Amino acid sequence: MSSIFEGFLSTLEVQEAFGDRRFVAAMLRFEAALARAQARTGLIPESAAKSIIGSCKVELFDVPKLVRDSGRAGSIAVPLVRSLQDAVGLFNPAAVAHTHFGCISQDVVDTAMALVTREALNLISADVEHCIHSLLDLAERHAATPMLARTLMQPASVISFGLKCAGWAAPLVRSRQRMRQVAEQALQLQLGGAVGTLAEMQGHGPEVARLMAEDLGLRAPLGHWQTQRDEWVALGCEFGLLVGSLGKMARDMALMAQFEIAELGEAHEPGRGGSSAMPHKRNPVGAMVALAAAQRAPQRVAALMQAMTQEHERALGHWQVELAEWPQLVMSAHGSARAMAQALSGLRIDTQRMLANLDAVRTSLPADAVATWFNPQLVEHSAGLTRSQVASLRSLLDARHGVAGPGAPAPTESARHQAVAPSLVWPV
Amino acid sequence: MSSIFEGFLSTLEVQEAFGDRRFVAAMLRFEAALARAQARTGLIPESAAKSIIGSCKVELFDVPKLVRDSGRAGSIAVPLVRSLQDAVGLFNPAAVAHTHFGCISQDVVDTAMALVTREALNLISADVEHCIHSLLDLAERHAATPMLARTLMQPASVISFGLKCAGWAAPLVRSRQRMRQVAEQALQLQLGGAVGTLAEMQGHGPEVARLMAEDLGLRAPLGHWQTQRDEWVALGCEFGLLVGSLGKMARDMALMAQFEIAELGEAHEPGRGGSSAMPHKRNPVGAMVALAAAQRAPQRVAALMQAMTQEHERALGHWQVELAEWPQLVMSAHGSARAMAQALSGLRIDTQRMLANLDAVRTSLPADAVATWFNPQLVEHSAGLTRSQVASLRSLLDARHGVAGPGAPAPTESARHQAVAPSLVWPV
Amino acid sequence: MSSIFEGFLSTLEVQEAFGDRRFVAAMLRFEAALARAQARTGLIPESAAKSIIGSCKVELFDVPKLVRDSGRAGSIAVPLVRSLQDAVGLFNPAAVAHTHFGCISQDVVDTAMALVTREALNLISADVEHCIHSLLDLAERHAATPMLARTLMQPASVISFGLKCAGWAAPLVRSRQRMRQVAEQALQLQLGGAVGTLAEMQGHGPEVARLMAEDLGLRAPLGHWQTQRDEWVALGCEFGLLVGSLGKMARDMALMAQFEIAELGEAHEPGRGGSSAMPHKRNPVGAMVALAAAQRAPQRVAALMQAMTQEHERALGHWQVELAEWPQLVMSAHGSARAMAQALSGLRIDTQRMLANLDAVRTSLPADAVATWFNPQLVEHSAGLTRSQVASLRSLLDARHGVAGPGAPAPTESARHQAVAPSLVWPV
Amino acid sequence: MSSIFEGFLSTLEVQEAFGDRRFVAAMLRFEAALARAQARTGLIPESAAKSIIGSCKVELFDVPKLVRDSGRAGSIAVPLVRSLQDAVGLFNPAAVAHTHFGCISQDVVDTAMALVTREALNLISADVEHCIHSLLDLAERHAATPMLARTLMQPASVISFGLKCAGWAAPLVRSRQRMRQVAEQALQLQLGGAVGTLAEMQGHGPEVARLMAEDLGLRAPLGHWQTQRDEWVALGCEFGLLVGSLGKMARDMALMAQFEIAELGEAHEPGRGGSSAMPHKRNPVGAMVALAAAQRAPQRVAALMQAMTQEHERALGHWQVELAEWPQLVMSAHGSARAMAQALSGLRIDTQRMLANLDAVRTSLPADAVATWFNPQLVEHSAGLTRSQVASLRSLLDARHGVAGPGAPAPTESARHQAVAPSLVWPV
Repeated sequence: MSSIFEGFLSTLEVQEAFGDRRFVAAMLRFEAALARAQARTGLIPESAAKSIIGSCKVELFDVPKLVRDSGRAGSIAVPLVRSLQDAVGLFNPAAVAHTHFGCISQDVVDTAMALVTREALNLISADVEHCIHSLLDLAERHAATPMLARTLMQPASVISFGLKCAGWAAPLVRSRQRMRQVAEQALQLQLGGAVGTLAEMQGHGPEVARLMAEDLGLRAPLGHWQTQRDEWVALGCEFGLLVGSLGKMARDMALMAQFEIAELGEAHEPGRGGSSAMPHKRNPVGAMVALAAAQRAPQRVAALMQAMTQEHERALGHWQVELAEWPQLVMSAHGSARAMAQALSGLRIDTQRMLANLDAVRTSLPADAVATWFNPQLVEHSAGLTRSQVASLRSLLDARHGVAGPGAPAPTESARHQAVAPSLVWPV
Repeated sequence: MSSIFEGFLSTLEVQEAFGDRRFVAAMLRFEAALARAQARTGLIPESAAKSIIGSCKVELFDVPKLVRDSGRAGSIAVPLVRSLQDAVGLFNPAAVAHTHFGCISQDVVDTAMALVTREALNLISADVEHCIHSLLDLAERHAATPMLARTLMQPASVISFGLKCAGWAAPLVRSRQRMRQVAEQALQLQLGGAVGTLAEMQGHGPEVARLMAEDLGLRAPLGHWQTQRDEWVALGCEFGLLVGSLGKMARDMALMAQFEIAELGEAHEPGRGGSSAMPHKRNPVGAMVALAAAQRAPQRVAALMQAMTQEHERALGHWQVELAEWPQLVMSAHGSARAMAQALSGLRIDTQRMLANLDAVRTSLPADAVATWFNPQLVEHSAGLTRSQVASLRSLLDARHGVAGPGAPAPTESARHQAVAPSLVWPV
Repeated sequence: MSSIFEGFLSTLEVQEAFGDRRFVAAMLRFEAALARAQARTGLIPESAAKSIIGSCKVELFDVPKLVRDSGRAGSIAVPLVRSLQDAVGLFNPAAVAHTHFGCISQDVVDTAMALVTREALNLISADVEHCIHSLLDLAERHAATPMLARTLMQPASVISFGLKCAGWAAPLVRSRQRMRQVAEQALQLQLGGAVGTLAEMQGHGPEVARLMAEDLGLRAPLGHWQTQRDEWVALGCEFGLLVGSLGKMARDMALMAQFEIAELGEAHEPGRGGSSAMPHKRNPVGAMVALAAAQRAPQRVAALMQAMTQEHERALGHWQVELAEWPQLVMSAHGSARAMAQALSGLRIDTQRMLANLDAVRTSLPADAVATWFNPQLVEHSAGLTRSQVASLRSLLDARHGVAGPGAPAPTESARHQAVAPSLVWPV
Repeated sequence: MSSIFEGFLSTLEVQEAFGDRRFVAAMLRFEAALARAQARTGLIPESAAKSIIGSCKVELFDVPKLVRDSGRAGSIAVPLVRSLQDAVGLFNPAAVAHTHFGCISQDVVDTAMALVTREALNLISADVEHCIHSLLDLAERHAATPMLARTLMQPASVISFGLKCAGWAAPLVRSRQRMRQVAEQALQLQLGGAVGTLAEMQGHGPEVARLMAEDLGLRAPLGHWQTQRDEWVALGCEFGLLVGSLGKMARDMALMAQFEIAELGEAHEPGRGGSSAMPHKRNPVGAMVALAAAQRAPQRVAALMQAMTQEHERALGHWQVELAEWPQLVMSAHGSARAMAQALSGLRIDTQRMLANLDAVRTSLPADAVATWFNPQLVEHSAGLTRSQVASLRSLLDARHGVAGPGAPAPTESARHQAVAPSLVWPV
């Protein structure tokens, strides 16, 4: 999935999560769970299940060949199932007919997509947590640091930098909570068979689904969702909303990092943010990545929504649209979250310059405007607001245990002090 | 808001809800609630509040003139506040300075938008309820009515019409629940003042906000949301998702209503669905409206998401984008819900034709394909699935009391048998 | 079409162009031209044509009633034709059957939309011309005015303000030319009848179409374009491209108008660009309007493109999507062009501040970076580039006569010095 | 660029055209042309140019390593230039400083994108030609083959299948012409240097650009287009329009291929269009690919348009958005064109069934409706229309020589009978 045209806009981790190998591995987890559940319900022989499960190891498969074959077959599932049957047949020819029994491509692909999306969500979640904690710490530290409030891109009045940080944090806290809630619904097993009825499973379909969902740590839906994409697209919307909130922060940071304003700057690492041509450049590359994501994500969400208008029991092209658009949306969401987490990690904050910019406005205005809109008490007022908002946001963060699904390990307190590394907050 | 270009795609009720008069009335409710709360907290004299509240009657205002003036002023709030001050000043000149105290245009406009959106949500909710109950009734009645399952627009196997109806209903049941949850967050008071701090209210801001929210039946947010639009846009996404699910049903119905298939037909009323040129035409106009909405809503959602990348304390143009896009999104959501409710109300169902279409496929296939994919037991299987899904969906519907906010009156059971009329399910 | 939610984002003129009355008048022009052409080809009696033409006067019609009725009828054409028939029947009952003969709603509505869009194009064109001439004049005047070149929102090197203005002008010059070319194709008569064949016109269809096109000053297409929307949507794309180029200029202007940069400012008029709450604010409202348009137009274009996938001879909902989206796109294009024309008219330019901002960067850099990227010769270099680009752009402007359609009156030279007033550059 | 999620929606050829190796090769063509031109204008020594040109061979480069490094560097240009300098330095250390002289990443990347897009356009063009000729042949053959005209997805009247084919062909003929015209403008050299002025080239910039453009067969623009993206995005719009027109044809074909209608069917090849689970399925996979493209392309176009609002001399993120969106748009355009070309190649047409469907409607209607809307003369009328439209379209095709750029070889007549293979119609 890595590409010379967008590798920079994403992260290696999330590119790997949606990479060919991991996706094939996730499909094999589906096939193994299917065999296990079908053996338990008596639909296939125990010995067949053992052979199938034993063959569901990604290292046995020629992933690049599967990818090449998927183009013609119209789906990665077709060559994968064929290869799996070949592998199973080597040692247990009788088990071949029991492989992938009663399922279709969309069952295994949708479920695998849910599995890799869960990994991606953990990556995103870790970076969003990092952003939140960085911002709340900054908000406290700068609760009373005066800075210009700007509206319609013109100076308006005084706030504190801490209040600005709290305002950046609040939507992320909510996104984190909504993403968890929505993901609990969206990360579900797909199991419908040819027309959504699991008819071939002779009445054991629901039980097979229940067992598989438990096995894979996914939700067992009411029925299939082959053409009912509302919960899945709802999760897509959450990615879009997160990217929007990160984009707002990036926009502010890029504006504040302008040379003439210079209130903020991103940290410089060798090979990052510089310009080969102009060594004096200090480019806000974190903001760049987040702003690029904010221009792309809404269109991805629109494509997913558009593709909901599916025909009958499975549609002509709509699912294919989703498959193509989804990974890009999620990858660019992680690109944005990581970029902002890194930007916040090394943020250079120039409080003297904030004050100087404020003073420049004050001295340009008539006394009565200064008295009303730029008097020092406004900073105290902002400091109070900041502290109360930070307290509320921290308590919302602590209340998260209530909304996580059963078995979801709460991120340890130390996560807060961790580097920007993946932590697992969705059940694996 | 009614226009010769899109009046047909919406409903009169929701056009009125976002109409000039109702919007001005909602703004006046804000101004009255503000005065009341500011008097209670001692920010303005009780006598001023009385004068202001007494003037907050829409019939005192020249709405068309306000609309005309809003173009130049850049906001409907500017001429409204001026007119309100004029009205207040007639009887109590001292109260003029206490009018709209400490607020900006966005405070009153965002709050009014939340108020009229609540009305629209009630309209939408009533029609979605109607769709759900129609569909669940149909699902039960036709649990064992055999019909073709079609995938990729080709015959695949057998299901029942009841199962199809249950599959149309399920996303609506979920939309209904998600819309309620998301609306509880999104329908909130806006009160931030010039730069979001309510600094002019001398520390009473939060209390004023609390009182106003209670007064108006809206949620009191943690702070302002002038540039934190995630919860608002999340509600926009829900409209988009609903329209997508309705569009899927409309697509299916339009396909089934084709002359050569003829399994379904929309009812005909004089002046609706006919063709002036060709009297033999029976156009599925309900499906048409829902399909048109399904093509427009994703783009509206994308515009709202795009506009999240706001600069600083209030942005340059982003809020204006939202104001223009929002009513259209909501109006087309109601257009779609109403159109489908009406289509379901008079739906002509031809079970004989469903059977005949099925038989035509059966007779075209080799015996083994018929035995596997078209055997009669598949209908029984579908009937069982249908009944269990309907039962689950009904219990989800009944469980709704748990998710509604405090004070939300549960729709009475009789709502189910009501005609397609607005019922109030969000607190007014 | 004026609305409290978007009146400000458009102009009164273009709102009127798409207003109910003007649209009804355009439809009546179609009906009159139809009758005239059908009489000339002998399809209807001359006396009937006279009666019809005599009734095609907008002042004879109750426009608000037509609008109200259009909602239920699903099209403004249905009540209009009925009213026209009533009017015709009053004096010449025999002519009623000859009214709107052989046509359908889409014929008259598409043609009327082309007619009003032509008016809108003239409005847009006049403001774009105004922008171009303002910019080319500025470019010449400031060819050697040094200013910072900024890349990735950081200082990079030196250019001249004139070069920046030339860079803003160039895409507008191209837009102007492409819009003309594309409009020549897109502004065409629609005449297809029930299924695009004009079968009722007994072989005279093509001749009727030719005569009508001539009469209305529109292009006569190869056939109908009821479901072939490529040329129409191509014009929609041009509006989107124009809005994008104007948005780029608006973005730059808003950035340059920041208090800390202060290189540019929009003129202030009473009641425009101020803030009721904060009298010291100088809001760049022109840029705001253009930036709002730039966030909305791409989504409109996407909706139009999406709606191209029409079913069969006329589709279910796609045309309705187009009708609803088109006027908004065009109106916001004019809003943007006018806003920028006005912003340029009164632009305050602070060359001293440009120099000061440049010097601040120079003094912050090591000597070798200054020598390479900030040496004074770069200004001379930019001045030369500016002059050569302005000359090329002016000659492109003058070469326009070559691309305009036959009969298109060339804008007089005085147009350049005109105020921002509509000039007619498309044939009326 | 091939991916398990969208390989099927595109073609191997166009994936290769945008593949890493071809893109690196295109960048090296830029670097070689640059050195050649700079030597001719005396900007760099002839010997340096020779060394640089000699190193510009893709086989000398470790493409996968360049791709890996591009992620961190933020652009493929940075590691490429570094590798090129390393290669040059091995034999001619003095030439290193003359490598990539006066250019920035965007110069080489934009130009390379134009070069690979030209290849893609040739691929697209060949398949569009194939579609057009197939359709015009079908139109002639079936000029008088009666079939149902359907509006709003209901039977309306009679046309001929030939007329339908002519209606599918007409927008493709126009797209072909518009694409050529727009591509002539859009396929241009990018050469601007750090801030668009080519200042480092000491006045030789324009001459270097002229020579390079000639060398690479691209247009030499007026200046740079680093932030003036209108012509480039205009080409993007053309891809969107083409995909829309192909989508309309695909939609019709999918509807006609429904079992109950059965007027058309796509050819079946082993491993294509079948269903692993249901061997009786005959899936219209060509239509599927084209319909998927039609849902995605409008969103890509919207993203490109959105990204036009660039800041200053080069923007923060906008160009990156373009780079990521562009290849996907073009690849899905070719996927769609190829899919339709293949579908048309093997199209099964059942004229008996067309007649039977027509008769079924006729027998269901009252005699007067039959007399008006279903009389046999309507077929003759359609046949005449078809023949005249085909003649016009053929003459438009022949007139193409007039619009092609100088040096554009006209596709030979034999192209018409060729298999679906790439022909070169843009100058290479």
